[in-house]
Amino acid sequence: MPARLSPEARAAALAALPGWREVEGRDAIFRSLRFADFRAAFGFMAQVALVAERMNHHPEWFNVYSRVDVTLSTHDAGGLTRLDVELAQAIDRIAATLPPPSPSE
Amino acid sequence: MPARLSPEARAAALAALPGWREVEGRDAIFRSLRFADFRAAFGFMAQVALVAERMNHHPEWFNVYSRVDVTLSTHDAGGLTRLDVELAQAIDRIAATLPPPSPSE
Repeated sequence: MPARLSPEARAAALAALPGWREVEGRDAIFRSLRFADFRAAFGFMAQVALVAERMNHHPEWFNVYSRVDVTLSTHDAGGLTRLDVELAQAIDRIAATLPPPSPSE
Repeated sequence: MPARLSPEARAAALAALPGWREVEGRDAIFRSLRFADFRAAFGFMAQVALVAERMNHHPEWFNVYSRVDVTLSTHDAGGLTRLDVELAQAIDRIAATLPPPSPSE
């Protein structure tokens, strides 16, 4: 189990993850993603699920139609670890391969 | 777009869906499901996603590891319709095919 990030490592990691923000009152990070439709959103989730299972590190996430809200934290460590940073990076890479929502959405 | 269920149809539908409860302050139904692990939980979600896409009626759902919380409502109708009842029935059928969590979980 990796250790919680030091304040310095945490700040550096967050600076390199501009799509993510800290969660109020909890040592976790959050990103809300929008896609073209449910098919795209669930396709994203399926890709992330495979990465998460391989890492044995899983997101907390909420989906409604084309929106996916992701929260990352390492429960067993009680806060943010390098696993969360790696999963966030993988999520950003996967999201970048998918078409964005159309402007009207 | 189907109409919101009448009070009588709503009561009858809920009586036939014992795993589901009404959501406080909202015309929606909710069920929390537990599975053996993330793989089982996401396998469940993938099966539900295919059914939902075919119905063009989608859940709101939250997943953390082996738990999936599902909320159903028909946004365009402003409440519960037969689509929600049909999706709830499909979810119950899919969940029944999957192994439950072990007793320690």
